[in-house]
Amino acid sequence: MTDLGVVGLLVTTLVNVRYLCGFTGSNAAMTLTSDGIGTLYTDGRYRDQAADEVPDLEVVIARDLLATVAESMSGPWAIETHTMSVDAHAELSNAADAKLVPSGRVIEGLREVKDSAELASLERACSISVDSLGDVLTGPFEGRTERELARDLEQRMFERGADAVAFETILASGPNSAIPHHRPTSRIIRAGDFVKIDFGARIDGYHADCTRTVAVGSPDEWQREVHAAVQAAQSAGIDALRAGLPIADADGAARAVLGDAGWLEYFTTGVGHGVGLEIHEDPSVGPKNAGKLAAGMTLTMEPGIYVPGRGGVRIEDTVLVGEKPRVLTTMTTELLEIA
Amino acid sequence: MTDLGVVGLLVTTLVNVRYLCGFTGSNAAMTLTSDGIGTLYTDGRYRDQAADEVPDLEVVIARDLLATVAESMSGPWAIETHTMSVDAHAELSNAADAKLVPSGRVIEGLREVKDSAELASLERACSISVDSLGDVLTGPFEGRTERELARDLEQRMFERGADAVAFETILASGPNSAIPHHRPTSRIIRAGDFVKIDFGARIDGYHADCTRTVAVGSPDEWQREVHAAVQAAQSAGIDALRAGLPIADADGAARAVLGDAGWLEYFTTGVGHGVGLEIHEDPSVGPKNAGKLAAGMTLTMEPGIYVPGRGGVRIEDTVLVGEKPRVLTTMTTELLEIA
Repeated sequence: MTDLGVVGLLVTTLVNVRYLCGFTGSNAAMTLTSDGIGTLYTDGRYRDQAADEVPDLEVVIARDLLATVAESMSGPWAIETHTMSVDAHAELSNAADAKLVPSGRVIEGLREVKDSAELASLERACSISVDSLGDVLTGPFEGRTERELARDLEQRMFERGADAVAFETILASGPNSAIPHHRPTSRIIRAGDFVKIDFGARIDGYHADCTRTVAVGSPDEWQREVHAAVQAAQSAGIDALRAGLPIADADGAARAVLGDAGWLEYFTTGVGHGVGLEIHEDPSVGPKNAGKLAAGMTLTMEPGIYVPGRGGVRIEDTVLVGEKPRVLTTMTTELLEIA
Repeated sequence: MTDLGVVGLLVTTLVNVRYLCGFTGSNAAMTLTSDGIGTLYTDGRYRDQAADEVPDLEVVIARDLLATVAESMSGPWAIETHTMSVDAHAELSNAADAKLVPSGRVIEGLREVKDSAELASLERACSISVDSLGDVLTGPFEGRTERELARDLEQRMFERGADAVAFETILASGPNSAIPHHRPTSRIIRAGDFVKIDFGARIDGYHADCTRTVAVGSPDEWQREVHAAVQAAQSAGIDALRAGLPIADADGAARAVLGDAGWLEYFTTGVGHGVGLEIHEDPSVGPKNAGKLAAGMTLTMEPGIYVPGRGGVRIEDTVLVGEKPRVLTTMTTELLEIA
């Protein structure tokens, strides 16, 4: 707040409110003032939940959160202009006797490095995820639909204790595997298919993110070549996730392997992203990111090759940055052959 | 556009983009110009999906959607200031040679009345929901945890063909039933409990929303009284969902019954809301809504009584407004006794 020259910070991004005070309701705002006072604002539906989840803060129950917050704002305040809508900003500007300045992504920045409690949740989400995929990979795949297999995997995650799935499972077979973000269909899986499975469990709000691509039956030469290129790129990318190194170098490490193998034009997505209370959060792993890796960041590493009409491979892990990288979604990345 | 005095409308609210053109990816914008041309903007991950889902529109693939859209904007344009962030607005203002004016909730307004295809999806979501609850209500409840029962219900919805759950299932037993929005816990359900179940299936993006509150074992006098009051209020509220009547009257009809029975102070949530591509959408059913009901609106009707520390009841249906109201979540609202 000193850097921003403000006396208070208004947090209106729900996931940031949750990060700061633990409140998980669907309607909330939080204020932090330079004298160290935090206040949570929510509506009457969440009176008990707020008292239970946030015992240490004053909780204000109100119908119109912004109008109520505005009453207590004066002087210069920082607000989250990257998520606050234009109309909400106009309402707040009118109601508050305060000078409003952008906070920038300060809370998102704090969220990049996870503490031990966050890591425990994330590790559990990751281990439930890979154990559940292990269950499903006993097969058979041939003759089943993408949708059936995706449901099966999701059900295993619930049985193993997931609070929810981290995102809609991507399960893409045959030519569909060339579509980076594919929604499972009634396509029947056949021998010769790639099956790309991008999935994860959620625990205490923390998201696991993992992808494996398997062959149905015996893979042909082309499949082995593509898979090996992605595997090598992913391995090189993970190896670059070390504290103190530039984030862009991790992007470059994975990309270089795909480039050397002649596949770069078929890599059309990002190399990775932060993962935690959101499935996609800061930092993104890209060539333009000028930041450095820090111990405790949790990032995905997910290069891929997508050949339209033919098929594609992605291999993705959730990785904890440290002196050495530590993969949290521990499972072989070899090309598995499923019946 | 004539009313707004603009030559184009930029739609950046994802669910509005989906409504207008059917695109379901997670990153998109759409422009509509006064000469009747629509254009969809998305990124490279969704190239195939966009071509597949939106065959009739030009699709522009770009990394920075707003910067790309800005290139084609000149003159007065309407934008969705109710959802566009302050920072995105600043970016667009700088990049576009256009005068930007608020569109208001025009697309949300169009979404209020459902067409026959939308209704078909919503009806299917509703029938899967109530059939699945019927499966679970065969019991027993006693001795099982809230979480187990909630998972069981969600699994039944998937088995019956749900694409997803419409929202996190609320399954609240005993004193927890007094919490309007409760997340299932490991509390073991006992004889004498109320169990409040607020849940729904999603089909083709359309959300069902239904609540029933049951008694475990034989209900006592207090439970019968509270349940009967909510049941009567809900029935009166549904009866008021007729095309041409003021929306506020439906709120008033449900509230009046609770008031006459002396329970109004324990009703702390809203009476209802629109439901469709979003679980909560326009219009809201409240005392201040000056609008009228129109045939084809789909609304929830969900009065409740929540007595802190003791227990609560909510009964909720998804209802189609017409000359007469038609309940889509057809299932008895009597107080069921589950073993």
